[in-house]
Amino acid sequence: MISREPSDLLVAAREGSRTALARLLTYVESGGAHHRDTVTLAYGAPAPYVVGLTGPPGSGKSTLTDRLITLALERGRVDDAESFDQIAVLCVDPSSPFTGGAILGDRIRMQDHATNEHVFIRSMATRGHLGGLSLAVPEALRVLGAVLFPVVLVETVGVGQMEVEIASEADTTVVVTNPGWGDSMQANKAGLLEVADIFVINKADRPGVRETRRDLEQMLDLGAARSWRPLIVETSAANNDGTEALFEAIDAHRHFLGRENLFAARRRRTQGELDKVVATMLRSRVIDLARGSAYEREIEAVLEGRTDPYMAAERLLLEP
Amino acid sequence: MISREPSDLLVAAREGSRTALARLLTYVESGGAHHRDTVTLAYGAPAPYVVGLTGPPGSGKSTLTDRLITLALERGRVDDAESFDQIAVLCVDPSSPFTGGAILGDRIRMQDHATNEHVFIRSMATRGHLGGLSLAVPEALRVLGAVLFPVVLVETVGVGQMEVEIASEADTTVVVTNPGWGDSMQANKAGLLEVADIFVINKADRPGVRETRRDLEQMLDLGAARSWRPLIVETSAANNDGTEALFEAIDAHRHFLGRENLFAARRRRTQGELDKVVATMLRSRVIDLARGSAYEREIEAVLEGRTDPYMAAERLLLEP
Repeated sequence: MISREPSDLLVAAREGSRTALARLLTYVESGGAHHRDTVTLAYGAPAPYVVGLTGPPGSGKSTLTDRLITLALERGRVDDAESFDQIAVLCVDPSSPFTGGAILGDRIRMQDHATNEHVFIRSMATRGHLGGLSLAVPEALRVLGAVLFPVVLVETVGVGQMEVEIASEADTTVVVTNPGWGDSMQANKAGLLEVADIFVINKADRPGVRETRRDLEQMLDLGAARSWRPLIVETSAANNDGTEALFEAIDAHRHFLGRENLFAARRRRTQGELDKVVATMLRSRVIDLARGSAYEREIEAVLEGRTDPYMAAERLLLEP
Repeated sequence: MISREPSDLLVAAREGSRTALARLLTYVESGGAHHRDTVTLAYGAPAPYVVGLTGPPGSGKSTLTDRLITLALERGRVDDAESFDQIAVLCVDPSSPFTGGAILGDRIRMQDHATNEHVFIRSMATRGHLGGLSLAVPEALRVLGAVLFPVVLVETVGVGQMEVEIASEADTTVVVTNPGWGDSMQANKAGLLEVADIFVINKADRPGVRETRRDLEQMLDLGAARSWRPLIVETSAANNDGTEALFEAIDAHRHFLGRENLFAARRRRTQGELDKVVATMLRSRVIDLARGSAYEREIEAVLEGRTDPYMAAERLLLEP
């Protein structure tokens, strides 16, 4: 029987146990007793290189992911220095509390990889963890890094605020569009422009590619100047056209980041994570306070005129 | 020249200085250096008996308030035990950041009382105090209590969530309606039902009184059972009809509350206030944290794998 201890599970997962890895990911996903130990272990290890893919449902993200996995593993075989010999894929659907629908379909499509021992595919859902997906995803990425996956692909369905926030946990963020993409992206255009390092026009065998590219270029011209101008790549994943170009674009961005830019970006994201953890802890502290006997004592003291709400609050917040 | 110290101001205000009282109220309204001392002094004194009046603009609240002031002062003269010899009125318009419009008009209408030394009338606005009106109003009520006003009338304009929240800071809450009131109240019916101790159908000389009373009774029948069933009083404040009946209804509710129910209600409100103060303090603590050097140190530690965001957050929150 497999241990439930995060440290034992980490050893087993590093030796290749997918059951152990799955259990660690459940700990960060669901919270609970082993959550904190898992996080401590995960943050003690180097972070993996993370590629985020997001785009509206039906834009072909999963087929692209599929192709990228194949390319990464091929590259891993020929060029050991890149160490792309293992790859993990995290599929996140923030709009759904359970794993199902599109993502389940995607997993089935990816299943020739699923039996490949170099590939690990996992769908993620929120299950009552206080910080929600916005904390569970970065924690899962650190777990995968600790289990020594050098690269993780995060796929999110949708282009809303939350999806974009998750995709931007990545070092390289790919936004997948289609010819005539306008309508599906309009609502969060500014958000997408801010996070995208690469735009993919997938299904580029369909009409409207030129207009879509022109729209994107115009948007980029109007947007704030960045040291990296997002690349635009045309693909037809279903026909395996342009997927190598996408792979090269991702690689180009990885080289652009280098040590310095990568560190700056990770610093910014770490700050975001810390803010979320602080906010989450404060929220649960208020809930705990409101249930405690110290809280009742302070209310009595205010009612009896022995103190005021500010002194009472200060005393409560000093309690460990 | 008048002192700026809250303790000096309190002494002066108790001796009748309206300037001193106004300054104390500005301290609770605007926050700032003297805010905390003012609150500490105010909560050390007994709370006044508070009557809240709320209703849509134009329902005639101010004319009713006017009549109630007159009745209370008359009562104070004949029945000293009730000690209604002084009365304070707080006019609050949460929808307006400044004092003006309807409330200014109301003040002018009330001005025969304004020169009466037994009456104190004050309009309140939010001016950047962190907790906003939802903290400033209860604090102002305590200040008025500390200055030995036995009774305070709080008038709020509107029937939205915020107005109802403020009105329900009162021991006795009066909701002012008019014949054919439905439309203006529909949106927050449940909220009004929950807080009202007395419904007034003002302008009862107009058609539709019977239907409005029937609607109210039906709502009360359908609502959750309470030990006090809200009274319904018909008035025509402009003609001074029914205002004595309203005064009696308020008095009946005050007697119903007695010591025990009054304490229970005040306990519940004190709890609400403490929760707001705790939340306000936590919010400003997060803002302070994000500016501090300890915060920067913790981010570095997470980035270098020496700690994880949870340990970092805990250390930050333990700092004084």
